[in-house]
Amino acid sequence: MSKLRKQTWRFDHPIYLASTGTVVGPLESRGPLSGSFDKEYGALDCGEKNWTEAERALMRRAISFCLAKAGKKEGDMDLFLAGDLMDQTVTSNFIARENRIPFIGMFGACSTSMETLAAGAQLVDSGYADNVLCAVSSHNATAERQFRYPTEYGGPMNLTQTFTVTGAGAAIVTKEPGKVRVAEATIGRVIDWGIGDANNMGSAMAPAAADTIWTHFQDTGRKPEDYDLIVTGDLSSVGSPILKQLLFEKGLDIGKIHQDCGLMIYSPDQPVNAGGSGCACSAVVTYGYLFKRLAEGSLRRVFVVATGALLNSATPKQKDTIPCVAHGVVLESAKEEKK
Amino acid sequence: MSKLRKQTWRFDHPIYLASTGTVVGPLESRGPLSGSFDKEYGALDCGEKNWTEAERALMRRAISFCLAKAGKKEGDMDLFLAGDLMDQTVTSNFIARENRIPFIGMFGACSTSMETLAAGAQLVDSGYADNVLCAVSSHNATAERQFRYPTEYGGPMNLTQTFTVTGAGAAIVTKEPGKVRVAEATIGRVIDWGIGDANNMGSAMAPAAADTIWTHFQDTGRKPEDYDLIVTGDLSSVGSPILKQLLFEKGLDIGKIHQDCGLMIYSPDQPVNAGGSGCACSAVVTYGYLFKRLAEGSLRRVFVVATGALLNSATPKQKDTIPCVAHGVVLESAKEEKK
Repeated sequence: MSKLRKQTWRFDHPIYLASTGTVVGPLESRGPLSGSFDKEYGALDCGEKNWTEAERALMRRAISFCLAKAGKKEGDMDLFLAGDLMDQTVTSNFIARENRIPFIGMFGACSTSMETLAAGAQLVDSGYADNVLCAVSSHNATAERQFRYPTEYGGPMNLTQTFTVTGAGAAIVTKEPGKVRVAEATIGRVIDWGIGDANNMGSAMAPAAADTIWTHFQDTGRKPEDYDLIVTGDLSSVGSPILKQLLFEKGLDIGKIHQDCGLMIYSPDQPVNAGGSGCACSAVVTYGYLFKRLAEGSLRRVFVVATGALLNSATPKQKDTIPCVAHGVVLESAKEEKK
Repeated sequence: MSKLRKQTWRFDHPIYLASTGTVVGPLESRGPLSGSFDKEYGALDCGEKNWTEAERALMRRAISFCLAKAGKKEGDMDLFLAGDLMDQTVTSNFIARENRIPFIGMFGACSTSMETLAAGAQLVDSGYADNVLCAVSSHNATAERQFRYPTEYGGPMNLTQTFTVTGAGAAIVTKEPGKVRVAEATIGRVIDWGIGDANNMGSAMAPAAADTIWTHFQDTGRKPEDYDLIVTGDLSSVGSPILKQLLFEKGLDIGKIHQDCGLMIYSPDQPVNAGGSGCACSAVVTYGYLFKRLAEGSLRRVFVVATGALLNSATPKQKDTIPCVAHGVVLESAKEEKK
């Protein structure tokens, strides 16, 4: 028997987030979720000599917080599942070199946050690992120069363009009872709507998010009211209405419970155009703000759907359109409901 | 109970390769393993308009052969696990866009071949999927221009340099009885020996291979004579002696049973300097030549240790040394031994 009901895994055992760790950069520190992160850097260089090292510092620090809060050491981890936006996911590779935990590198662009969490929960559920450390990172300066333009150019941003979140999120997945359960995961298919503009990734990714959310509801037989929130990763102010419209047209109204991490992390007056994006966007919002609310019980069930644009810097120039994917994970509060 | 005995998974159920598919480029077609691949392209462009499209054609074609031989369709696959060397693994992403199979993108550089196979077998063993399609690709022209120099430069190759294999390999993992079993997997840790020369990856990767092989023998309690072959991915003529020496110094003599895919795929008179490399190197040798020999029973048990150099084109320029990893999978013949 396959546990894969179409694309959705329901874990057999109660699987928990033992702890999470989140660090962010200066702009995120001045956003509405400030205070829900473990460390908020005041400078984009995070005290390092270059952007590359700064992004590594983010992931390293997020993992340190995560391990410390769980009272665990690197050597207690059976597996390290990580990815990031750098070519060949070098941030993760270099952190794996330091922590020496058996390493499974993953790539799903900004969906890597929930891709690693889904895979980690699956490995723990099936008994292949007792403790899995999942981590992702993104850094505005490393991502912008790689995917768009050298930031020194100071080129104007397109209004549909998102702003890569500087930050990193880490989580430990285990069977040891904790405050937040990882209940289900829906693995996404790659959808390409024919959008080739790398400055309009919200529109490109919305159909992939819609596909994963639609599939999740088909697979589970649930209704939107069974969730407190459905949170997408980085659809932004451009992609979010498209997602809601696409699902509404299929008879699924998520309007009242949908939020987007890219819109939650910044306030409307911050200079981020359409909102935040990047692996860290969904990771820090989920492992910081949402984790706290689930742990205290003010949210009971949240479906986090991390969205990823699977392009590289060359593919739009080669007139390829943008393939996108979205991986979703259902997180539930383990706190007893009040009678 | 964790099935992870340190780093090695032994699968509970008999897990099989239902089928494999392999395609290679012109130089590989003239090597000693010619005839063991499903398709041998006579031209490096594989009939496509550019190198990017050529690499996609390789992966597409390898998958087609694999599905056809198993008598299965894309829709029969529960998951697609794939990766490649292109920035943001775009070859895999674009193939996932075509086949629409729920997609888990992975990255382990040239170790991605065995990383995807290990993860696929784990997913099938634990009942999360019935049929997993695993695939990797590499193309000499796409890899050389990305990691080293534009090939038009015609720069001389360093003698320690390897030659990226043009090809793709695919395999379907299932519980349905077949001729070759996937018995175990050892997930590697990232090791960096301080080598920063991207033209000497054999030396850089040898310690990672040694670590994984050593761990595998510790975890399983076996001896080298329990294996017909231990095959590394792309250590080449430079890294292979280092691997054997490192293990010999620890009391493990694999000299008689060690081979390297990068040395098997080309003959000594071909212009590849230290040997072959790339995701496709271990994939086409394993899924082509070794699969055939295991299926016919002339090899009984082979440990394939795919090696990966986890750098990108910028990290050596930033004076970073090269973190490396090796993931190993034990393949066994399912053919009855003669009495």
